Amino acid sequence: MSDENLPGGTTTIEAPPIAARYFRVREATVELCRTLETEDLVIQSMPGTSPIKWHLAHTAWFFETFVLARASISRRPFHPLYGALFNSYYLQAGSQFPRAQRGLISRPTVDEVHRYREHVDQEVLALLRDGVSQELEALVELGVHHEEQHQELILTDLKHLFSLNPLCPVYRERRPEEDILPGPLFWVAFPGGIRSIGHSEGGFAFDNELPRHQAYLEPFEIASRPVSCGEYRAFLDDGGYHSGKLWLSDGWAEAQREGWEAPLYWKKEDGRWRIMTLTGMRDVNDREPLCHVSYYEAEAFARWAGARLPTEAEWEVAAAAADLEGNFLESGRFHPVPAASTVGVGQLFGDVWEWTSSAYLPYPGYQPPLGALGEYNGKFMCNQFVLRGGSCVTPRAHIRRTYRNFFYPRDRWQFSGIRLARKV
Amino acid sequence: MSDENLPGGTTTIEAPPIAARYFRVREATVELCRTLETEDLVIQSMPGTSPIKWHLAHTAWFFETFVLARASISRRPFHPLYGALFNSYYLQAGSQFPRAQRGLISRPTVDEVHRYREHVDQEVLALLRDGVSQELEALVELGVHHEEQHQELILTDLKHLFSLNPLCPVYRERRPEEDILPGPLFWVAFPGGIRSIGHSEGGFAFDNELPRHQAYLEPFEIASRPVSCGEYRAFLDDGGYHSGKLWLSDGWAEAQREGWEAPLYWKKEDGRWRIMTLTGMRDVNDREPLCHVSYYEAEAFARWAGARLPTEAEWEVAAAAADLEGNFLESGRFHPVPAASTVGVGQLFGDVWEWTSSAYLPYPGYQPPLGALGEYNGKFMCNQFVLRGGSCVTPRAHIRRTYRNFFYPRDRWQFSGIRLARKV
Amino acid sequence: MSDENLPGGTTTIEAPPIAARYFRVREATVELCRTLETEDLVIQSMPGTSPIKWHLAHTAWFFETFVLARASISRRPFHPLYGALFNSYYLQAGSQFPRAQRGLISRPTVDEVHRYREHVDQEVLALLRDGVSQELEALVELGVHHEEQHQELILTDLKHLFSLNPLCPVYRERRPEEDILPGPLFWVAFPGGIRSIGHSEGGFAFDNELPRHQAYLEPFEIASRPVSCGEYRAFLDDGGYHSGKLWLSDGWAEAQREGWEAPLYWKKEDGRWRIMTLTGMRDVNDREPLCHVSYYEAEAFARWAGARLPTEAEWEVAAAAADLEGNFLESGRFHPVPAASTVGVGQLFGDVWEWTSSAYLPYPGYQPPLGALGEYNGKFMCNQFVLRGGSCVTPRAHIRRTYRNFFYPRDRWQFSGIRLARKV
Amino acid sequence: MSDENLPGGTTTIEAPPIAARYFRVREATVELCRTLETEDLVIQSMPGTSPIKWHLAHTAWFFETFVLARASISRRPFHPLYGALFNSYYLQAGSQFPRAQRGLISRPTVDEVHRYREHVDQEVLALLRDGVSQELEALVELGVHHEEQHQELILTDLKHLFSLNPLCPVYRERRPEEDILPGPLFWVAFPGGIRSIGHSEGGFAFDNELPRHQAYLEPFEIASRPVSCGEYRAFLDDGGYHSGKLWLSDGWAEAQREGWEAPLYWKKEDGRWRIMTLTGMRDVNDREPLCHVSYYEAEAFARWAGARLPTEAEWEVAAAAADLEGNFLESGRFHPVPAASTVGVGQLFGDVWEWTSSAYLPYPGYQPPLGALGEYNGKFMCNQFVLRGGSCVTPRAHIRRTYRNFFYPRDRWQFSGIRLARKV
Repeated sequence: MSDENLPGGTTTIEAPPIAARYFRVREATVELCRTLETEDLVIQSMPGTSPIKWHLAHTAWFFETFVLARASISRRPFHPLYGALFNSYYLQAGSQFPRAQRGLISRPTVDEVHRYREHVDQEVLALLRDGVSQELEALVELGVHHEEQHQELILTDLKHLFSLNPLCPVYRERRPEEDILPGPLFWVAFPGGIRSIGHSEGGFAFDNELPRHQAYLEPFEIASRPVSCGEYRAFLDDGGYHSGKLWLSDGWAEAQREGWEAPLYWKKEDGRWRIMTLTGMRDVNDREPLCHVSYYEAEAFARWAGARLPTEAEWEVAAAAADLEGNFLESGRFHPVPAASTVGVGQLFGDVWEWTSSAYLPYPGYQPPLGALGEYNGKFMCNQFVLRGGSCVTPRAHIRRTYRNFFYPRDRWQFSGIRLARKV
Repeated sequence: MSDENLPGGTTTIEAPPIAARYFRVREATVELCRTLETEDLVIQSMPGTSPIKWHLAHTAWFFETFVLARASISRRPFHPLYGALFNSYYLQAGSQFPRAQRGLISRPTVDEVHRYREHVDQEVLALLRDGVSQELEALVELGVHHEEQHQELILTDLKHLFSLNPLCPVYRERRPEEDILPGPLFWVAFPGGIRSIGHSEGGFAFDNELPRHQAYLEPFEIASRPVSCGEYRAFLDDGGYHSGKLWLSDGWAEAQREGWEAPLYWKKEDGRWRIMTLTGMRDVNDREPLCHVSYYEAEAFARWAGARLPTEAEWEVAAAAADLEGNFLESGRFHPVPAASTVGVGQLFGDVWEWTSSAYLPYPGYQPPLGALGEYNGKFMCNQFVLRGGSCVTPRAHIRRTYRNFFYPRDRWQFSGIRLARKV
Repeated sequence: MSDENLPGGTTTIEAPPIAARYFRVREATVELCRTLETEDLVIQSMPGTSPIKWHLAHTAWFFETFVLARASISRRPFHPLYGALFNSYYLQAGSQFPRAQRGLISRPTVDEVHRYREHVDQEVLALLRDGVSQELEALVELGVHHEEQHQELILTDLKHLFSLNPLCPVYRERRPEEDILPGPLFWVAFPGGIRSIGHSEGGFAFDNELPRHQAYLEPFEIASRPVSCGEYRAFLDDGGYHSGKLWLSDGWAEAQREGWEAPLYWKKEDGRWRIMTLTGMRDVNDREPLCHVSYYEAEAFARWAGARLPTEAEWEVAAAAADLEGNFLESGRFHPVPAASTVGVGQLFGDVWEWTSSAYLPYPGYQPPLGALGEYNGKFMCNQFVLRGGSCVTPRAHIRRTYRNFFYPRDRWQFSGIRLARKV
Repeated sequence: MSDENLPGGTTTIEAPPIAARYFRVREATVELCRTLETEDLVIQSMPGTSPIKWHLAHTAWFFETFVLARASISRRPFHPLYGALFNSYYLQAGSQFPRAQRGLISRPTVDEVHRYREHVDQEVLALLRDGVSQELEALVELGVHHEEQHQELILTDLKHLFSLNPLCPVYRERRPEEDILPGPLFWVAFPGGIRSIGHSEGGFAFDNELPRHQAYLEPFEIASRPVSCGEYRAFLDDGGYHSGKLWLSDGWAEAQREGWEAPLYWKKEDGRWRIMTLTGMRDVNDREPLCHVSYYEAEAFARWAGARLPTEAEWEVAAAAADLEGNFLESGRFHPVPAASTVGVGQLFGDVWEWTSSAYLPYPGYQPPLGALGEYNGKFMCNQFVLRGGSCVTPRAHIRRTYRNFFYPRDRWQFSGIRLARKV
């Protein structure tokens, strides 16, 4: 991308780095949807997902509300009702259209939403060109990271939608891949003691990664790579889904209620396990990292395997020295892939989010920001579990070693997998 | 429309009347959707409605399944999965995609559905041009009436969808109207005795209008026109929605559960009753016929008014001599309008479907057709009530004096209104 | 029972007949519960049933509210809160404790409820001894019939409760019976024409049996006896519960939702059909009249059998000449039994309530009584179907040829069976 | 109680201490129910509670299953079906009657359950008299602690049941009390550093209190006493229940869904807050410790107060030096009472369970016992929060400084209150 492409006509090479990053991320969101049909953008496939059209509008709303409206008190909103329609959950930012009804709104159309995005883009870029306060620039940066989160959600929500369609739509054609034999799963030991946890380096972090604090860890071992489909299949073949004693009580109840017999998107056809992916339906590949399991399944698998899930502190300690490399959104694979053997702990980033055994709770001394943005992360610190490391649909620039993702233990539509740990 | 417009290029003036009727009706369905956005066609706003895209495809499926597949055993279906996707409820015609999930299917796209329709049209018209058996022609005629039913449903379902949108979309601009003062409501008396009920004249009728049979009626009086909004407002102002003793037990429970305070699509703003219509939001017009009430509300209103609803036999007797004229779909009003005074019973056809006090049950000696088409009407003869006369979104050619429509007593999204009757 | 047994000590032979009937019916209710444990009287096994304790209290409440309170304006109620606790559904008689929560009230205890009953009994009997107006006497008579209805409900609700208990409690020991071979099912023909329907003779009738009116009937045939378990089993063995095309649409949906595979209280054990009765669990007896089927099952069975259910008018015409004899509550059998062959239509009364194809609607010209008692029957005239003839747990004195019982088409916990009819 | 009272007739002063403790605890359970009516023992008032009759039987089942059946392989169970009926949730101990249907079982009667208890008692006491292995004695001890837990549940479940009854039943008469003015709430500081957490001393502990392990704590302050009703009322008067920004997202959703406006059992009457207690309905006493709040309310209150809840490690550190004294079940008050001022952290034990901010998770290195008893605590380590300290209905002998109770964040029917903490 050259800067000449920045909208507004008068951009020059003086465009500040934040403007370039803003522009690239906003473009990437639109690019993700380029090959989709209008029909694909409108539907909400379950209460926990949103129509892609809504994601497109909500991310514009975020910049309009937290950047543009703060930059100029007298500014009139793009549309008087978009404030409520596209506010996700910020009670302090005004009323919100009910979350479960986001798929009942045929208007604004997709084209109107794109015009909304373009309008917001021009205003934000003009603002950045003119120079903004440090506080506003920080809000733009927050918005960029927010947009990246929704890029991931666009793909996970789309995958769920497509999975309900007997016509089995395909998002993108699968790229030819070399057939990698993953390394064996071995254990890497870490000593115990007091460790520092949480964000410290310069650069952006979400509030929930702060403050950096001390935690006492006992010595532990962590697996060299995520659990593969083949390893999980052994659990399945051993009756894992029919043996309640392996499961947490709430997990067993959920599995019975929902009739779980395998990970989400797995389907038995003529005695063979098939898997639905964004690049089409195909046979389960035993070598691939497993994904689309709930915390309950991850926890039961670990028990069956004679191990356990790592705490988030253990995970962070293990990841401290690892390269921030992996199979991210930019690879264009849209699915986890096997990785060759490594010397230490590998494949921590990208491919699959890894469930930890840590409840999502505030770090000691955590303080949410004041005002509506304090609702971004803080009010969800209950009933969820932390996942670490990013997935194959996470933008590479989005992830950090200290990044805390969080979902309910029953959630399965994210690219969530398993890494094992154990006592020394 | 001239016959030259028939697709296929080779049509001539010899095209049989059924072909012309087929073509016109199919065109009219598409025309209804012409001004809508793709987004409007995809969403299912409640389990009882369907996405418009589904209506477009299902009506094509009907001809494909009951005409084309019967005309040629060796014919291959247009798409191997459309059979299940667009089968509404015919158990004997194969499996069905779950009704409540019709809005979760982004594919086929609207364009693909139109191609499906065009493909079916060409096949059906070719068949008709070549000449078909009487049985097949009867099936085409059934399909044409079926298509007309779905034209009405397209508009009632669209209205429900639009009603959920804070942006208040408008289907068509409202036409300027002369301000008609409706005549006073007076009573027209009919003698008792044995009457013949049900379809007899030549021409098409649904199976549920048969057989023509005898029924004994006591003398009765029936109102000269439907209840107006102003009259219903008096019930409302008199506390009708807060006085359980006026209501059937099930109706009162439903009203409490759903929080009914007025007819569907009425909304109080700043102390004034507003009404949402396909031509926009506006003040309630007291002169208009009331619509969008459930059977429960109709029945409670009648009790409050010291009257009752007519039986369907009474309605049919009263309608026997009435002209089949009224405010139908073709008027382009998409809403009931006041009618000037008449000498006898007026406004029986068009404007609003009129709830009768008759449960929807088989006529004595009723026999459903053999096979899947026997499911068209027969299996619904339980738990519903009969409505008569058609509405402002019913195609004019569709209605008959003996026409039996049926909905659950709680249903309100049809243009359903009230006509009173009483004992002599 | 001799009159000396009347409570109050001072009764004489002058006690009016209504007092004797009152006393006998009230005693019979208590007698029904004599062998039960306190625990059996407290539980509500589903929203549609009530704890027996509640039945005992509600029937006292009925006399207190509609007789005692009317007899003396200044009378103070037995307990200030019983009015609301034991009002079933009479909106015009004050507030009501929520119906689904009747089983959450451990107090008043069973003993306190019996004291309530005794107190009411003494007041009512004193009133009757002193002489009452015709209007009050009519209310006492209504209350007696009301009490009889609840006697039946006590047993059907108890049966449902016991059916949920793995310990299989038995209400009463089964009496030894002679093994009757029921006569063959044959058809009895009736001519068509105008018939008079509804109550006419002197004596008590519920308001819903009125007014007597004319109805036109086509000629019909009706079966000589109810369908037997053996006949129903043929339907079951023929896949009746797995063939949707035999069922009404709502019925099929209900059967799927609830997983119906047989009548209520049937259970397959080691390949044999077992049936749970008030006198214990035993093998299904093919000779017995079938019971505990819903309207949906009755209707599907009739279709499978090439017949239909009778209308209530047809049933009433067929019953006009039949003796009011049968297997009622007083037989002490608590279950239907086979009957020997008859010349005409037999077994119309007792054994099983017979579903008719008639929706429960008001007779032409029906007027509910004024005030709260107008709610007794009138407000339920929607969504239910009429059953005729009484069952093996109906008190003999309670039934009439014109008696209209009514339940929802999904209900199965009453002793509801099937009688077939057909076109001549 | 003297040992002569031990059942069986032949007991002597040689009865081992465990036998005496067994006997006393079992007697105490029966004593708790002595003044209740049979009707009170049968009902299940919500899915999360159980009928008292079930508690009585389940605690006998526990000894029968984990003591008697292990002591003798050839022993026949007291009743072949009680195993399933009274198994709470031990998948490895056989099948279980559905938890939500415990209130649908009128049989066995209360008397039969008492006979079951007596039978088990005689067998257990005979076993203990004859001398048992250390392992069996440990199981008896576990059963005794288990019985104590159910003593508490009997009272909390009874309270919930009584709260639904308009007659406001009273469990026990309130004892006259001196009117204590509670001390002011002040803060007690504790230094940070590595602390040992979990059970260590000899004596019984549940598996979830193990293993004792190290945890790093930052310096903190903890409140000298629990929050009082008066303090909580200030939150309420300040609109705490209508200000979503004070709440966790899941908490706010729950509060809206359930319509929470105050703690459970508070009720506004004529402008005054009334509170329902086991000793009757009365005005809220501002001086009393607050109870019957969910974790969500506790957490929102703490935020409003500018503080937070303590972690369970902080609580345990603060409690390390405190006397194990307080207002327990044995006080006969059945409600929290104000306590006079103390020098350090007071009122940690008894009165109210104190919500901590710690999710209920396994301690590092936790291993559940093998077999069915491994299900006792381990499988619930998800979605719940830890409470500490016992309540006014906890038996005194039951509590420990390291005791971990756990409930879902929405639960309110336990005597759960609030203790605040804050950063130094």
